[in-house]
Amino acid sequence: MPRALVLNGPNLNRLGLREPGIYGRVTLAEIEAQVRAHGARHGIEIDTLQSNHEGALIDAIHAAADTADGIVLNAGAYTHTSVALRDAIASVAVPVVEVHLSNIHAREAFRHQSFIAPVALGQIAGFGAQGYLLALDALRAHWSERSRAADSG
Amino acid sequence: MPRALVLNGPNLNRLGLREPGIYGRVTLAEIEAQVRAHGARHGIEIDTLQSNHEGALIDAIHAAADTADGIVLNAGAYTHTSVALRDAIASVAVPVVEVHLSNIHAREAFRHQSFIAPVALGQIAGFGAQGYLLALDALRAHWSERSRAADSG
Amino acid sequence: MPRALVLNGPNLNRLGLREPGIYGRVTLAEIEAQVRAHGARHGIEIDTLQSNHEGALIDAIHAAADTADGIVLNAGAYTHTSVALRDAIASVAVPVVEVHLSNIHAREAFRHQSFIAPVALGQIAGFGAQGYLLALDALRAHWSERSRAADSG
Amino acid sequence: MPRALVLNGPNLNRLGLREPGIYGRVTLAEIEAQVRAHGARHGIEIDTLQSNHEGALIDAIHAAADTADGIVLNAGAYTHTSVALRDAIASVAVPVVEVHLSNIHAREAFRHQSFIAPVALGQIAGFGAQGYLLALDALRAHWSERSRAADSG
Amino acid sequence: MPRALVLNGPNLNRLGLREPGIYGRVTLAEIEAQVRAHGARHGIEIDTLQSNHEGALIDAIHAAADTADGIVLNAGAYTHTSVALRDAIASVAVPVVEVHLSNIHAREAFRHQSFIAPVALGQIAGFGAQGYLLALDALRAHWSERSRAADSG
Amino acid sequence: MPRALVLNGPNLNRLGLREPGIYGRVTLAEIEAQVRAHGARHGIEIDTLQSNHEGALIDAIHAAADTADGIVLNAGAYTHTSVALRDAIASVAVPVVEVHLSNIHAREAFRHQSFIAPVALGQIAGFGAQGYLLALDALRAHWSERSRAADSG
Amino acid sequence: MPRALVLNGPNLNRLGLREPGIYGRVTLAEIEAQVRAHGARHGIEIDTLQSNHEGALIDAIHAAADTADGIVLNAGAYTHTSVALRDAIASVAVPVVEVHLSNIHAREAFRHQSFIAPVALGQIAGFGAQGYLLALDALRAHWSERSRAADSG
Amino acid sequence: MPRALVLNGPNLNRLGLREPGIYGRVTLAEIEAQVRAHGARHGIEIDTLQSNHEGALIDAIHAAADTADGIVLNAGAYTHTSVALRDAIASVAVPVVEVHLSNIHAREAFRHQSFIAPVALGQIAGFGAQGYLLALDALRAHWSERSRAADSG
Amino acid sequence: MPRALVLNGPNLNRLGLREPGIYGRVTLAEIEAQVRAHGARHGIEIDTLQSNHEGALIDAIHAAADTADGIVLNAGAYTHTSVALRDAIASVAVPVVEVHLSNIHAREAFRHQSFIAPVALGQIAGFGAQGYLLALDALRAHWSERSRAADSG
Amino acid sequence: MPRALVLNGPNLNRLGLREPGIYGRVTLAEIEAQVRAHGARHGIEIDTLQSNHEGALIDAIHAAADTADGIVLNAGAYTHTSVALRDAIASVAVPVVEVHLSNIHAREAFRHQSFIAPVALGQIAGFGAQGYLLALDALRAHWSERSRAADSG
Amino acid sequence: MPRALVLNGPNLNRLGLREPGIYGRVTLAEIEAQVRAHGARHGIEIDTLQSNHEGALIDAIHAAADTADGIVLNAGAYTHTSVALRDAIASVAVPVVEVHLSNIHAREAFRHQSFIAPVALGQIAGFGAQGYLLALDALRAHWSERSRAADSG
Amino acid sequence: MPRALVLNGPNLNRLGLREPGIYGRVTLAEIEAQVRAHGARHGIEIDTLQSNHEGALIDAIHAAADTADGIVLNAGAYTHTSVALRDAIASVAVPVVEVHLSNIHAREAFRHQSFIAPVALGQIAGFGAQGYLLALDALRAHWSERSRAADSG
Repeated sequence: MPRALVLNGPNLNRLGLREPGIYGRVTLAEIEAQVRAHGARHGIEIDTLQSNHEGALIDAIHAAADTADGIVLNAGAYTHTSVALRDAIASVAVPVVEVHLSNIHAREAFRHQSFIAPVALGQIAGFGAQGYLLALDALRAHWSERSRAADSG
Repeated sequence: MPRALVLNGPNLNRLGLREPGIYGRVTLAEIEAQVRAHGARHGIEIDTLQSNHEGALIDAIHAAADTADGIVLNAGAYTHTSVALRDAIASVAVPVVEVHLSNIHAREAFRHQSFIAPVALGQIAGFGAQGYLLALDALRAHWSERSRAADSG
Repeated sequence: MPRALVLNGPNLNRLGLREPGIYGRVTLAEIEAQVRAHGARHGIEIDTLQSNHEGALIDAIHAAADTADGIVLNAGAYTHTSVALRDAIASVAVPVVEVHLSNIHAREAFRHQSFIAPVALGQIAGFGAQGYLLALDALRAHWSERSRAADSG
Repeated sequence: MPRALVLNGPNLNRLGLREPGIYGRVTLAEIEAQVRAHGARHGIEIDTLQSNHEGALIDAIHAAADTADGIVLNAGAYTHTSVALRDAIASVAVPVVEVHLSNIHAREAFRHQSFIAPVALGQIAGFGAQGYLLALDALRAHWSERSRAADSG
Repeated sequence: MPRALVLNGPNLNRLGLREPGIYGRVTLAEIEAQVRAHGARHGIEIDTLQSNHEGALIDAIHAAADTADGIVLNAGAYTHTSVALRDAIASVAVPVVEVHLSNIHAREAFRHQSFIAPVALGQIAGFGAQGYLLALDALRAHWSERSRAADSG
Repeated sequence: MPRALVLNGPNLNRLGLREPGIYGRVTLAEIEAQVRAHGARHGIEIDTLQSNHEGALIDAIHAAADTADGIVLNAGAYTHTSVALRDAIASVAVPVVEVHLSNIHAREAFRHQSFIAPVALGQIAGFGAQGYLLALDALRAHWSERSRAADSG
Repeated sequence: MPRALVLNGPNLNRLGLREPGIYGRVTLAEIEAQVRAHGARHGIEIDTLQSNHEGALIDAIHAAADTADGIVLNAGAYTHTSVALRDAIASVAVPVVEVHLSNIHAREAFRHQSFIAPVALGQIAGFGAQGYLLALDALRAHWSERSRAADSG
Repeated sequence: MPRALVLNGPNLNRLGLREPGIYGRVTLAEIEAQVRAHGARHGIEIDTLQSNHEGALIDAIHAAADTADGIVLNAGAYTHTSVALRDAIASVAVPVVEVHLSNIHAREAFRHQSFIAPVALGQIAGFGAQGYLLALDALRAHWSERSRAADSG
Repeated sequence: MPRALVLNGPNLNRLGLREPGIYGRVTLAEIEAQVRAHGARHGIEIDTLQSNHEGALIDAIHAAADTADGIVLNAGAYTHTSVALRDAIASVAVPVVEVHLSNIHAREAFRHQSFIAPVALGQIAGFGAQGYLLALDALRAHWSERSRAADSG
Repeated sequence: MPRALVLNGPNLNRLGLREPGIYGRVTLAEIEAQVRAHGARHGIEIDTLQSNHEGALIDAIHAAADTADGIVLNAGAYTHTSVALRDAIASVAVPVVEVHLSNIHAREAFRHQSFIAPVALGQIAGFGAQGYLLALDALRAHWSERSRAADSG
Repeated sequence: MPRALVLNGPNLNRLGLREPGIYGRVTLAEIEAQVRAHGARHGIEIDTLQSNHEGALIDAIHAAADTADGIVLNAGAYTHTSVALRDAIASVAVPVVEVHLSNIHAREAFRHQSFIAPVALGQIAGFGAQGYLLALDALRAHWSERSRAADSG
Repeated sequence: MPRALVLNGPNLNRLGLREPGIYGRVTLAEIEAQVRAHGARHGIEIDTLQSNHEGALIDAIHAAADTADGIVLNAGAYTHTSVALRDAIASVAVPVVEVHLSNIHAREAFRHQSFIAPVALGQIAGFGAQGYLLALDALRAHWSERSRAADSG
């Protein structure tokens, strides 16, 4: 049974409390519950972690090298400033899907650049909580394709 | 029954023939068939159009103002150069989801900028043909939320 | 009897329907009617054309080389991206007045640059539909001055 | 009877004497006379002022808050360097039309930027002395529209 | 018998009429005739096409995938702005030689960049009509080398 | 009795030991004592925290949402690199005054930009330890004005 | 008895009349009265001057070399454009505290740079009229520290 | 007898008092006396003017159009910010030699650019008071060459 | 007996597991063993620490102020983004040698800049594990020179 | 009998030995022999020179002013850095054709700029050794046209 | 017995005479003697060359292709400006270690970029004369690893 | 008797032959004769050297350390590209005056920057051959001031 880590970065613990005009009213606990339900429907075990500490997020990605088949990552503001997170992803073989609640490409210029994107499978931005479910679907499609390739290999 | 326009821009008619290392081996006709099947499963009527002409894409967006409830748009290279397409989207009330087959944020610098993003709901990039289905799912979630808001309004 | 081409570029067919906060509620047909009336008052024949196709606008400028004494051009978004339109104007001897409905210098940075300006007589921006009439007046003044120069030459 | 201030900035007192290849042979006194005649034809009282002093131009704009219904402003070289003039315009409720004798967008790069534009109604550039008359016409159209809006309000 | 497409972009139909100081007095028809004569001398069939429409040029490149052994391309102003043309060339296996009548590297800064260059065999600029003949010679040398490599392979 | 958090970022624990030419000889403990005394004089309870960990500072700002009426923040070097701290401030309703011991605008270019400033009440820089007392006074004035507004509301 | 010059630059005479959303409703006369009262409480004589003329501000700074012990300077828009004001401050031995009513670091990019900052003691921005009082307190602290240093020297 | 205007800009009245490390200990009066003595030796009448007002410097340049055969101009900080001074010089036929006491090219980056240079005969920087005498010699050489050309013309 | 801290930053715990094409197959434990052996040969006590937490690295540098005679620092990705680490080094008197396994100057542009370099003795990059031994030799040479200087002082 | 100098710059003596993936396997001696044979076929005398010394290349261009009717110049890496070579070409009346073996516009950014281009007839890049023959053909066409113009003049 | 070329570029012949604050008091002859002694200890033959001529340095690198097993290169100021030196290194198979006496990353911005770095094994900067010995050690380690790889290959 | 080296860089041997519109018709030999005559009048021995080789100019500056009391340097195009020349000047104690025939600040942007300026006494540009005489006068004044300082020291 495949296993996915849903990893959330700085300030995402404030979801629902913080700038609802941009991020909506749903809390992180509710999002994690939705992802777990979606995982249950499709036979995927879901681990979740949120931290405001860049180092803790790196530690978690390293740990996932041995425990997860995929990562759904919303790195929050570290997306735009952390070369270290990028290198952490490059140092493990686990596929990563990048998620953002808001459409970062339509906000301030300093949010357009992503250090995560060049080492991720792809990016989903602008669809709120729904983006996490789409990311899980993208991971599922990636796993199918990979096992198909392995079978025919 | 809701209706979505799947609009593809320049060179996407060459899919499957062109740079398979970047874009894969699936053809545009196959993608459009997948989207239609996905639409049928969820009760959405799908229109499709591809053109290499910037003006023809603008015309299609204008026409969709009266005929579509949402647009899935892969503007190809025009994504990075066309202010006119951006203004076309801004001139209609139809929600647009931006799709890219490859992860544009991980390619050449001139592909990082999107004139479409600031006027789109959100962006999905890097998941190949699967991205079109995720985009349709994102449109569906947007419609549900909107009608829920309308019901409770 | 002098003849002027009033040439409108991409998305201007959406006028009145599109972003009224920026562009107002008047339609392109109404603007063209105002220009024709203004032309009639001053003995100027008015031709009008709108297209969303960059190539069609270039064709029209080429054709005007033989059929028009002046061009009032609102190139819309192509103003900011089209070197080809600039070269088209440079390739004909017809004087061009550049018009913009909104004050492009007070909007997003990518709308400040004009490839049209260096090959136009001058620019009028920010006065809505009224700008087209001012542009026609500017053409009239240009014709007068030129014929005066020719008479005294 | 409405009243307009025609305000000219640095070096415009040298008109006719200075670089006729760029600015023509007409003097400032002749332009002011043309504007007064045009005002007389349309029932507008015209005040004129020229100064080479940035501070004096700011003082004049402040004074116009109580004495003028509109300003036709050719800020000359201060257009490109003066944030203070921009703030002066923002500090009064009087509508301002920006005028330039030459087409500043077709000259050196440092003349393309205007600090005035974001706080002006619009810009007219490249039509020589005629530009002042067009600017007055633009003010007249603005007044009409405003009073029409007030009547129907 | 090898076949080459000589493809000309926007405003090149105006050759001979337009800015003779930069582009000379020869017309496009005369250039095409010279190329055809040069082709005849060397046993190459020549197809020619000119269009002001970016989309039409893309269509022509796609079509050439099945009908031409090489393309001599003067993309005119689209050279500097069209990522779509670049992608069109990348999507076909036909070798492309980039030609410019004038020495674009000695003109305005915005003409120095070429989106075509990274996907072309090479570039010839600054030799007027003669550049098309040199380009055909470059294609011939490319074909010879390729067939020699194939023979010895 | 109002409560203020005085929050110090990386390396400020080295104050007095570190580069006295730039930062002076006073220690952080002495500054905190001065602030506490100033708070006592004006009936404000003072909490203090220093951390070299970006994540710990974010955690402290989140916690302050429920426990403090204002924050005096010297984010040290994170001022110039941390989008996450900025978002943390935006995620709580507590007013923040930004303080710097040295005049950051008179130092290296990379210290001129502040990610904190756009979400702070204001900034005080260059007055050494005294800056913290001025910041507390600024908070007091902000509280007075707010309660005055509430009373008259 | 120490003496401080409170020097205000362009458009600050319009305070209370101008853009209250940004600058509040208090007038310059009221601010000057508050500063005078604050000065009286602390035994400081206050001189005030406002001018829209860059040259007049420079003259005033030169004059202050002989008549003032400190300057509180709000240079308004000249902050961002005047190298001459910067040099004027550098040419006198009087300490200068830079004040801004609004938080300039949270506004348009062209207001982030200050030519004054590198030659000032420090900067206070974003606290409205209160900022002037804080600036006076900063001057007082500077004087105390200086005389303490002199006593022990 | 030829006549030269020695025109000094902002803060040069503070010479000798101001930053002697950069500008030396000589006063402006002493420099003007040296220039007058040098003029007397070579039969040149010398007028002098210093102002901190940009507008007053522009006025002086305009006036010199009728009264001077050459200008030695040290525009101080306005050198780097004033397009208006540049246009003032361009509006008169009097040759201008640009002087700077310090070697501006060896100081802060914002002092490297000169708006005066493109409209001046040449520039002399870094030689202190001696630079004014060299500038006068440069004017004398210019006059000789011009009259030689006129004689042989 | 001198004491050196070998401090490794984010992701260096993944050495040997991570991107062997760039970083080789040796693990961090093996490198630390090599450094310890090298230290033993030359009578230097070696402490080692690795952390993915920026704050923990800063804490370690502060602690080293009292416990180490030199630091060999590979700050990993924080090299390019952390002003705080730079300030930490500046706040202690311990000499720091900067090491990188790969030649950062030959990789992506965002890895060319080092915030560490301006406060380090020097930089060694591109020699893999060997670089740590060279760094220790550099520290030894620095200590010798310093004690030689002290002896002769 | 016309005479052409084929001038090669730094590292071109390493051709055939150096990076064959980019520059091919042909040696400089072989290219010079091909050019000589081509010259012989068309009645052109060929001189050749290669040097790694910028100054020697300048000397050769100066000497060619009296001895050559045209120059085929591959300035190698000096193309991108040498203003002095550019000025050398501008100082002689001999026409220069710029050649590059590889398509410099498709390589690293620092190879896109050419200081030679603005003073050359034109540029041929990307066709390997064949480019030298095309350059000679371009010179021949230039000579023909010039003598034709002289005949009809 | 392996052989290394120690190659020094412009102005390094002035070592010991020149700016001792930056470069120390040791002469180039002394450094070369130290390197020779170090080479003798480790069985490496040392050749040395210094030149102020870019071309002579290129010639020396070419010659080293046949005579040296490694190069220790301090290219001095040419490091920052010479694409030709970079290409020279790329044209030979000899490994190059880049050395700088001072820490170039801690000096003026124009010394941060190295054209040598992308084609060198690695870079050692900031350790004075000691850096040359470290570079030789780095070469030795590189040779060992290469021969180990060859043995096991 | 003091001794000055007049050192001319690349292409200055072409003076009089080259682009007379920019550089005039006087030859370098004539300029050197004028400088020698001027030197004779003032008791200064003049050495002259011109070279197109950057390395030769560096050698000459090194040699001048022992043989000259001052250098008048026109580095030609190397002014804008040579860090090595800058370092050569910094490595000798001889004062250098920078001369340019044309006003480099009024020409192409790449001629505005001077690597020589930060290490020169000052710069004289735009006065043709006369500039060399002015430079000699500037050296003379520098010597006088220095010996006056020494006498009073």
